[in-house]
Amino acid sequence: MDKTERPNLGISPGSPIYVGERDPTETALSIIGYDISQAWLKSADTVDELLAHRNPSGITWINVNGLKDSAVITRLTELYGIHPLTVEDILDTGQRPKVEEFDDYLFFIFKYLHLQGKELISEQISMVFTKNTVITFQEMAGDPFSGIRRRILNNGGRVRKLGADYLAYGILDSVVDAYFLVLDELGARIEEFEDRAMDEKDESFMPDIQRTKQELLKIRRIVWPLRESLSLLPQLSPAFIHEELGPFIKDLHDNAIQVAETLDTYRELIAGVMEVNLSAVSNRMNQVMKVLTIISTLFIPLTFIVGVYGMNFVFMPELRHPYAYPITWAVMILIALGMLIFFKHRHWF
Amino acid sequence: MDKTERPNLGISPGSPIYVGERDPTETALSIIGYDISQAWLKSADTVDELLAHRNPSGITWINVNGLKDSAVITRLTELYGIHPLTVEDILDTGQRPKVEEFDDYLFFIFKYLHLQGKELISEQISMVFTKNTVITFQEMAGDPFSGIRRRILNNGGRVRKLGADYLAYGILDSVVDAYFLVLDELGARIEEFEDRAMDEKDESFMPDIQRTKQELLKIRRIVWPLRESLSLLPQLSPAFIHEELGPFIKDLHDNAIQVAETLDTYRELIAGVMEVNLSAVSNRMNQVMKVLTIISTLFIPLTFIVGVYGMNFVFMPELRHPYAYPITWAVMILIALGMLIFFKHRHWF
Amino acid sequence: MDKTERPNLGISPGSPIYVGERDPTETALSIIGYDISQAWLKSADTVDELLAHRNPSGITWINVNGLKDSAVITRLTELYGIHPLTVEDILDTGQRPKVEEFDDYLFFIFKYLHLQGKELISEQISMVFTKNTVITFQEMAGDPFSGIRRRILNNGGRVRKLGADYLAYGILDSVVDAYFLVLDELGARIEEFEDRAMDEKDESFMPDIQRTKQELLKIRRIVWPLRESLSLLPQLSPAFIHEELGPFIKDLHDNAIQVAETLDTYRELIAGVMEVNLSAVSNRMNQVMKVLTIISTLFIPLTFIVGVYGMNFVFMPELRHPYAYPITWAVMILIALGMLIFFKHRHWF
Amino acid sequence: MDKTERPNLGISPGSPIYVGERDPTETALSIIGYDISQAWLKSADTVDELLAHRNPSGITWINVNGLKDSAVITRLTELYGIHPLTVEDILDTGQRPKVEEFDDYLFFIFKYLHLQGKELISEQISMVFTKNTVITFQEMAGDPFSGIRRRILNNGGRVRKLGADYLAYGILDSVVDAYFLVLDELGARIEEFEDRAMDEKDESFMPDIQRTKQELLKIRRIVWPLRESLSLLPQLSPAFIHEELGPFIKDLHDNAIQVAETLDTYRELIAGVMEVNLSAVSNRMNQVMKVLTIISTLFIPLTFIVGVYGMNFVFMPELRHPYAYPITWAVMILIALGMLIFFKHRHWF
Amino acid sequence: MDKTERPNLGISPGSPIYVGERDPTETALSIIGYDISQAWLKSADTVDELLAHRNPSGITWINVNGLKDSAVITRLTELYGIHPLTVEDILDTGQRPKVEEFDDYLFFIFKYLHLQGKELISEQISMVFTKNTVITFQEMAGDPFSGIRRRILNNGGRVRKLGADYLAYGILDSVVDAYFLVLDELGARIEEFEDRAMDEKDESFMPDIQRTKQELLKIRRIVWPLRESLSLLPQLSPAFIHEELGPFIKDLHDNAIQVAETLDTYRELIAGVMEVNLSAVSNRMNQVMKVLTIISTLFIPLTFIVGVYGMNFVFMPELRHPYAYPITWAVMILIALGMLIFFKHRHWF
Repeated sequence: MDKTERPNLGISPGSPIYVGERDPTETALSIIGYDISQAWLKSADTVDELLAHRNPSGITWINVNGLKDSAVITRLTELYGIHPLTVEDILDTGQRPKVEEFDDYLFFIFKYLHLQGKELISEQISMVFTKNTVITFQEMAGDPFSGIRRRILNNGGRVRKLGADYLAYGILDSVVDAYFLVLDELGARIEEFEDRAMDEKDESFMPDIQRTKQELLKIRRIVWPLRESLSLLPQLSPAFIHEELGPFIKDLHDNAIQVAETLDTYRELIAGVMEVNLSAVSNRMNQVMKVLTIISTLFIPLTFIVGVYGMNFVFMPELRHPYAYPITWAVMILIALGMLIFFKHRHWF
Repeated sequence: MDKTERPNLGISPGSPIYVGERDPTETALSIIGYDISQAWLKSADTVDELLAHRNPSGITWINVNGLKDSAVITRLTELYGIHPLTVEDILDTGQRPKVEEFDDYLFFIFKYLHLQGKELISEQISMVFTKNTVITFQEMAGDPFSGIRRRILNNGGRVRKLGADYLAYGILDSVVDAYFLVLDELGARIEEFEDRAMDEKDESFMPDIQRTKQELLKIRRIVWPLRESLSLLPQLSPAFIHEELGPFIKDLHDNAIQVAETLDTYRELIAGVMEVNLSAVSNRMNQVMKVLTIISTLFIPLTFIVGVYGMNFVFMPELRHPYAYPITWAVMILIALGMLIFFKHRHWF
Repeated sequence: MDKTERPNLGISPGSPIYVGERDPTETALSIIGYDISQAWLKSADTVDELLAHRNPSGITWINVNGLKDSAVITRLTELYGIHPLTVEDILDTGQRPKVEEFDDYLFFIFKYLHLQGKELISEQISMVFTKNTVITFQEMAGDPFSGIRRRILNNGGRVRKLGADYLAYGILDSVVDAYFLVLDELGARIEEFEDRAMDEKDESFMPDIQRTKQELLKIRRIVWPLRESLSLLPQLSPAFIHEELGPFIKDLHDNAIQVAETLDTYRELIAGVMEVNLSAVSNRMNQVMKVLTIISTLFIPLTFIVGVYGMNFVFMPELRHPYAYPITWAVMILIALGMLIFFKHRHWF
Repeated sequence: MDKTERPNLGISPGSPIYVGERDPTETALSIIGYDISQAWLKSADTVDELLAHRNPSGITWINVNGLKDSAVITRLTELYGIHPLTVEDILDTGQRPKVEEFDDYLFFIFKYLHLQGKELISEQISMVFTKNTVITFQEMAGDPFSGIRRRILNNGGRVRKLGADYLAYGILDSVVDAYFLVLDELGARIEEFEDRAMDEKDESFMPDIQRTKQELLKIRRIVWPLRESLSLLPQLSPAFIHEELGPFIKDLHDNAIQVAETLDTYRELIAGVMEVNLSAVSNRMNQVMKVLTIISTLFIPLTFIVGVYGMNFVFMPELRHPYAYPITWAVMILIALGMLIFFKHRHWF
Repeated sequence: MDKTERPNLGISPGSPIYVGERDPTETALSIIGYDISQAWLKSADTVDELLAHRNPSGITWINVNGLKDSAVITRLTELYGIHPLTVEDILDTGQRPKVEEFDDYLFFIFKYLHLQGKELISEQISMVFTKNTVITFQEMAGDPFSGIRRRILNNGGRVRKLGADYLAYGILDSVVDAYFLVLDELGARIEEFEDRAMDEKDESFMPDIQRTKQELLKIRRIVWPLRESLSLLPQLSPAFIHEELGPFIKDLHDNAIQVAETLDTYRELIAGVMEVNLSAVSNRMNQVMKVLTIISTLFIPLTFIVGVYGMNFVFMPELRHPYAYPITWAVMILIALGMLIFFKHRHWF
């Protein structure tokens, strides 16, 4: 189950301390500098070494992977004038997705979703976006940014021509794209449930379907605030986002809506699958019990009849009749047939 | 099940690549030019050949059928100054219905619904509407536009007298009209379900009803965004839509609301049908089990009695009594009658 | 079931063609002219004959009963400058209730509900309200307007003193009043269901209750848009509605809200009745099955015992014991009593 | 069941005629006049006699108890210039709670709730509040106003010092306070249901709980419109309500919200109680049926065995074996024990 | 069950009387004065003694623990010019959480939640916040403020540097932090329910889960109004709250939203757990009944056969056949095997 992440209880608000369910990953720093004519990727051990690789005249993208070393993160964020509450949020992996506007920067929190085997992994990514610089903080190794990194370094696409706001958009876009992959997998699982729904002996059906419902719930808690945040973006200060970016942000928002709607559709599909399953289980059970009960009901009167002629009364005239035995058989067969015809006529089997 | 259409993962946003579940249909181009005095329909193999048939002084309607040839579509859209994200949307058949206002054009995405046998087919249609020109892009062959095409070519109705905005309205109107045909068919199916609901042996009832529920869900996902888009139309730039069109757009919006409300009514009807079915199945089952159990219960005490006189005790005085056998029968018949009267009195059958 | 009324597919929008589930009723025309000092009611065969009876200095109320003769309706509406889409709506009996403001007139669509035997009849009534003139179009014979007509002709009440807007209000008011009669009847039916809910053998209970639910649904689809329309009335042009009418319209709106809330209450009552029924059926069934099973369970061990002494082993010492038979009886009675006491103690019956 | 109160069908709107489910109570008139230095309470038989006791320089509170004598009410309301629709509402006891602002007065309708034995009584109270005068109309004898009356006459509290708006507030406040008494009683009933929920033999449980649900529904229909009306009060004309009254009205509104929330909580509690009951009934039933079936299942194979040795075949070697009988017993006991162990092992009992 | 707290019925509004379910706790007074350079904590027996310890140039925090001594509370609130309705709210422990703006102060009501063993305790805390002074009123001993008190006295953190508004924020923040602790415990309980859901013999499962649902309901009634109040804070007068506090209040609001969303998630998880439980119980029951019924069904035809040869007819040729007995056994074994194969083939066990 998804535990509630508890903020630092009893600690002064705004303290830079890692909070999370998982052990923090070691911090690694990397930097990409680019403009229309060039692009480089460097990694570094200290913040100062890192900042030496900034592109003063172009765009700089700093990536902090792993939140263990809070000293490094404090140092970096102080240099960029980031509010202590923002730093606290970056280090607390239980935050809701959100966008916040500060005087000098925009702050985003969102979640990268992927499946590891059958398990849904949700990783928190924070993004600080100031003029010409984007800083991303990842909770763990593994991110959805390889495509955009490749496009920057290989001089590919629009990204090298446009500003830091397009880079920030591209980062959000790859996160939303990753949601579609997860949805595809969940969709395939629901199709599988549709097949399993008719099998009344599948005892793990209900727990499995509940697990998928919980995962949908978890994704919903991630996608709805993101959708809401994206709908707020156009109202933010034009200092941060150029007008040309409008259609791109609208497109991103549309994708987030589509993810949210697909989640709702999946919920309804799962509800339908559960109804089919309940109905199938109960129908099968009813059929079985009916047939078994019909068999019993057929034999019980016959057993009574044979019991009658097993009685040891001295004066039972039938016992001596030469055709009594075959007549009894005939009567019993007639009774059985009569009952069968009656049951059939009533459509009981 | 309806799979989530995934956008071009890892590809730069705005790339003109076909995305869809179905194989793309070969691209065919046709053009209708008309004004109040004349109208012509031409088809062409290339974009340039096509554009030679434009009506520079009147209205031009270009129809692109099939999305396979992205080069043709790119060429055509570039000539009309259409944004790369719009082209990406045209080529991605998993888009939500929407309307978007750009500087030079309005962009619509909607879905044409029809039934092929029992299967619900949803085809994406995009429409770019600029001054005096309407360009429609259809995912597949087969469309709801034959009526409007005939009216244009036969000098019929209002369409030849009014502008390109009335043509765009007419196209949307025929799409919404087609929804009513689908609703009629689904309504007939639900009536059929009402009859089938009382038959507790119809094992395919629940899967069939779930399939129809899924189709209603699918239509809902198509109709609600359309309804929302239509409600936004009056707020769009008057550069695109003349004031006279107001009542027509309101009428179209009303029709979309009616489709949406009918969908909701169908959902409730289906829920009701399922309740009737559950209740019928369980009532019938209960009746059957009760009758069968009553039969068993009647005979079990009698079988006990005959068992008693089947015992081989040496000293059982009744066995020698000359009327023991008929008395036993009488007692058993009395017991059976008593139980029947008791059951009847308690209204157990 | 309520079929979706399909608009004229493939036909140019705004065409004056009757659309409906029922065969159209023959068109009959009548006119009421009145002012504070006089009032007359005339019927006519043609539009021109009819209009000769207008009251040029007072209020005129034209009533068109039956929508079969579209030529007559087209002629009349053209004379009053009514938009083709309005005429199309008048002739399409599957419209949602609504109010629309045009330059020269207000256009209302609403539904008159009444019960014919057990069947709920919904009749569409359209009303065009221009300065000093009200034109009503009824789908069928039979309307709720006899009271208001009598008040006009008998010089009764406020209606003769106030303007055409008060007449229009009076017409709407009598329609809403008729809803209360229908609600009363449905309320009585729900009370009847409450009695029937405890009878687990009433197999038509569930279909009957579903029929009433469908009727509530149908009324809801009629009342909610009306309520919404009435809430819009105060915002309409003061050219149509005088300020003095304010409290009357608010009162009408309150009545529509009350109808809507009563519908919601009825839905909840029906849901409650269904719960009581489900619980009663299952309780009764459980009681019956329990008693039957207890009877079987009592006799099965006894039948085993008598079976034991029905065995034909040569060496069975008990068989020869002189008191074996009465002792066996005693043992069996003790076992039966023990089981009964055990079952009673466990509160099984 | 709560019947829909039908307005005066076919009667001109605004007619002063009593409408209600109960027979109207005889009309009795009383008047309280007070200011900071004095207070008096008088009753009277006619309106004119009554008005002689007004306090022209202070506050006057006229109370009309019972709505039978519409002539008296018409006379009184005409003297105060009250709109005919208001009078119609006062005389129609099926109105929704509301507040309406007229030019010269505020008009309130609300309901006084109390329990008579187990029955929930809802009494309509109307209040007309003009400058320095409050007129209340009560449907029946018995009201929640004794406390406020006593405070006025005994020179108690704030009420003598503040204006007529504080009196109106005090009247509303005592009505809302009375809701809490009813809620307490219903809360106690729900606690009782929680105890009864575990008793699967309590056949009146479901009807009783449904009755309480209906009462909650009825209170909800009374409280929600009141809450809505109270939220509108601060926007009303400052001519009616002084600024100092602001915190009192907010407090009243808070109380109404608390009543509404408690109703919602009660609904959820009842839903929970019903779930517990359904689960308890079905668990108990399952336990009983399982034990009974186990008993049958134990004896059926044994009965078969004794049947075998009850057969009369001439050649059955076992029958002659000297230990056959005890061996048979041993085998049967072993079979029974084996089955018991198997059932126990499977946790079937 | 949570009883509705009833306000002082029949008592003039604004009277300072303790209302609550619990007996009131003895009143104890303490005061903290601090500024950037110093901080002290004193307790006192009377209000005047207490106020001697105020910090006139810095921040003062008065804490009133226990509401029994209404004279002390009246005296203190009069000195600070607090409205009688506020005092009534402070003394009524059944208030909804809220924030109210008065001319001279902000008034907060909120609830401190904690678990005592398995029981959820909700304690009302009121806070009056005027310029430089914060007064808190606690219903009982035990509060979540030890952390903030320690930070003030130990010169820790931001609190000593910022104004009284930051103190008020810090108090609210520790209350919300305490909610997370309660949520963690409830989350653990739900995980426990997930394990218990598969055990169909756990009769206290349903009552336990309902108790947790009631607690979630109770927390929801506490958290939703708080969340709403916090969303109103930014609109309050800037006289009370400095601009620098903006991000802190937003953060607090985000935490309240997270608590509310976690509650919703828990509700859905519980619903899922109940579905799993219902399905598990019914599946197990079905399995058991099926196996038991199969055993009966196997033996009933065999018992009939042995009954046949237990009949005492004189003329039964089979009885004399030398191999009749073994043949009968063979036939019975074949029948039993045939039935088992048939049942297996049909997947009945």
